Amino acid sequence: LNRRLAEFGTTVFAEMSALAQATGAINLGQGFPDTDGPEEVREAAVRALRDGLGNQYPPGPGVPELRHAIAEHQQHRYALTYDPDTEVLVTAGATEAIAASLLALVEPGDEVIALEPYYDSYAASIALAGGTRVPVQLRPDTESGTFRLDLDELRDAVTPRTRLLLLNTPHNPTGTVLTRDELTAVAALAVERDLLVVTDEVYEHLVLDGAHLPLASFPGMRERTVTISSSGKTFSFTGWKVGWVTSTPALVSAVRSAKQFLTFVSAGPFQYAIAEALRLPDAYYDDLRNSLRAKRALLTDGLTAAGFGVFRPSGTYFITTDVRPLGHTDGIDFCRHLPSRAGVVAIPNAVFYDDKPAGSPFVRFAFCKKDEVLNEAAERLAGLG
Amino acid sequence: LNRRLAEFGTTVFAEMSALAQATGAINLGQGFPDTDGPEEVREAAVRALRDGLGNQYPPGPGVPELRHAIAEHQQHRYALTYDPDTEVLVTAGATEAIAASLLALVEPGDEVIALEPYYDSYAASIALAGGTRVPVQLRPDTESGTFRLDLDELRDAVTPRTRLLLLNTPHNPTGTVLTRDELTAVAALAVERDLLVVTDEVYEHLVLDGAHLPLASFPGMRERTVTISSSGKTFSFTGWKVGWVTSTPALVSAVRSAKQFLTFVSAGPFQYAIAEALRLPDAYYDDLRNSLRAKRALLTDGLTAAGFGVFRPSGTYFITTDVRPLGHTDGIDFCRHLPSRAGVVAIPNAVFYDDKPAGSPFVRFAFCKKDEVLNEAAERLAGLG
Ligand SMILES: CSCCC(=O)C(=O)O
Ligand SMILES: CSCCC(=O)C(=O)O
Repeated sequence: LNRRLAEFGTTVFAEMSALAQATGAINLGQGFPDTDGPEEVREAAVRALRDGLGNQYPPGPGVPELRHAIAEHQQHRYALTYDPDTEVLVTAGATEAIAASLLALVEPGDEVIALEPYYDSYAASIALAGGTRVPVQLRPDTESGTFRLDLDELRDAVTPRTRLLLLNTPHNPTGTVLTRDELTAVAALAVERDLLVVTDEVYEHLVLDGAHLPLASFPGMRERTVTISSSGKTFSFTGWKVGWVTSTPALVSAVRSAKQFLTFVSAGPFQYAIAEALRLPDAYYDDLRNSLRAKRALLTDGLTAAGFGVFRPSGTYFITTDVRPLGHTDGIDFCRHLPSRAGVVAIPNAVFYDDKPAGSPFVRFAFCKKDEVLNEAAERLAGLG
Repeated sequence: LNRRLAEFGTTVFAEMSALAQATGAINLGQGFPDTDGPEEVREAAVRALRDGLGNQYPPGPGVPELRHAIAEHQQHRYALTYDPDTEVLVTAGATEAIAASLLALVEPGDEVIALEPYYDSYAASIALAGGTRVPVQLRPDTESGTFRLDLDELRDAVTPRTRLLLLNTPHNPTGTVLTRDELTAVAALAVERDLLVVTDEVYEHLVLDGAHLPLASFPGMRERTVTISSSGKTFSFTGWKVGWVTSTPALVSAVRSAKQFLTFVSAGPFQYAIAEALRLPDAYYDDLRNSLRAKRALLTDGLTAAGFGVFRPSGTYFITTDVRPLGHTDGIDFCRHLPSRAGVVAIPNAVFYDDKPAGSPFVRFAFCKKDEVLNEAAERLAGLG
């Protein structure tokens, strides 16, 4: 294993899911639902398979049906116009989109600013590209009960070597949704310092308070932003790995240069199914959010009753907690013993921090699970105190 | 787009497939069959989808069912033993396996020896890893009518900076299958110079003369070889992109470190279907080869009649030709005009060479197409003279 990757072992998601399987604990670690997405989307995949759609290499940029559906989605939801032929690229989930974007756009030695805590593939992709990550921390704010961006800190992190901002809203693991004011300020900074922005918005349809604001819709951003999204979280088929990039022709073409050598193409038949999924009526998206709001309430209550400090997520299906009220200070240690102590698996946020002490007390729980599973988890956790 | 990728535009396969679509020409360029694989494999995918197998993130190394099937396949076909839990890794096709292997194993500045002509993702993956590619040419041998490896040249290419040998047998685009003697010599060299070997054997079941000899089965190789294969070519579902790596625990773990950040996981339900496919009876593999032998004869005859110089492939479903007998010297130019001149798309081998003059006269045609399509192509090409 080479030096660039030396600091990256097994991703925490794989490790924790394996722990869940080994111990039979309830897995509130990795973010995948325990109920598959809509039957009609699954049956669209069956039809594609049987009709011979996508069983052979799809086109490099993705099948036209999906690229058109993505462009329509951006238009319909956000009034953002993308040319499906030159401004949309289908990827093997958001992970490939992130890796390809960074491998394409970062030169060795470039600095990449990323929100801390950061989803672990960000750090690895920056490293693979030979870049240097510059974390800017989302800080716990006891008043609002959320993690917030300090805009001055962000501004101070920009140097002449800064190549791009890597953003993520709604934000994993904190559940923070950047506000219109915050995004306006971020956009102004990107324009002022002429930065590229890569924004991971895979939780765009999981904004539970307010509405999703795509970064590309802010002034000056459409032409400097690579927007990444994915179908896994929105349609509850995380195993299909259909993601995408929307940006300018030049940026999409750059990302594609890297992407074509990472997987070439992927998920042929699923691309057709997700094209249909993107056209589900508004009711689908509303029901998804309503269901997740109820689950958020359920798990929030359970965690609060069990004595955790609870940060309120405005988006994603994750809740970040503070384990200090339970008498713990080391979240990694806490998570390691949680399966045997309580039969529950969670993710220690510290693995998403360079600044380990800052991340140490925080632990993430996923609530994209059946109500009875969340209830059972809450009961088990109640025994912790 | 950064400097590392600057020399790589759009992969020739995407370019030529787009040209085929735009002109309506017969696409003998990119290597995908025009007939999907076995119905029972497709229906296994349907079952997985409907049974909720793989619709959510599969485990990072791949689903156990597939890892076990791969290990059994290696045992049954080649008497090679791999532990399905630590020595098998499922990837998004061979392309991701190649990218992950090189990103994991090559340090900036390392030299990687690759057979020239080389499949284009090899060069790109070496570049992404910051390595230097050192091509060793397969040379046209008029006596045997094939392209052959010069073992002295290979030996001379090894330097103290050589990190690994990147091999490919059966070889794309030439159709060369390395012989037992050649592989024995390669293995001895790798042992002598203590080199890692990454071997792309995706055409393992498309050896049309003789038997496939996996490099890992040669003395001293099991412990230093990363073997890459894939289901796309063997089962005629190239759009599903299910590939894999088999190697030692240490090497698999290194490759996985990179792989988990390229796509994380992929193709959930298809992994279950390919596990079933790998257990198809010998008759399936025999029929596949017999059918391809007939197609090879068909296209060889057509190309010969049309005046091409034809190299006989012992494996793969590609035929490399020499266009000089037709009065051409520049294969790239020849391929650019072939759709309008003859309604056929082919691939210029020159794109797979650093040494452009050496590759210039060679053009590759795929024969994984229906007999009537090959006949029609042959008729069209006959008009070229
Ligand atoms: C590869 S896991 C993708 C992100 C996610 O689901 C998580 O953070 O748990
Ligand atoms: C991405 S194309 C994979 C290899 C192949 O099929 C070809 O060489 O045509």
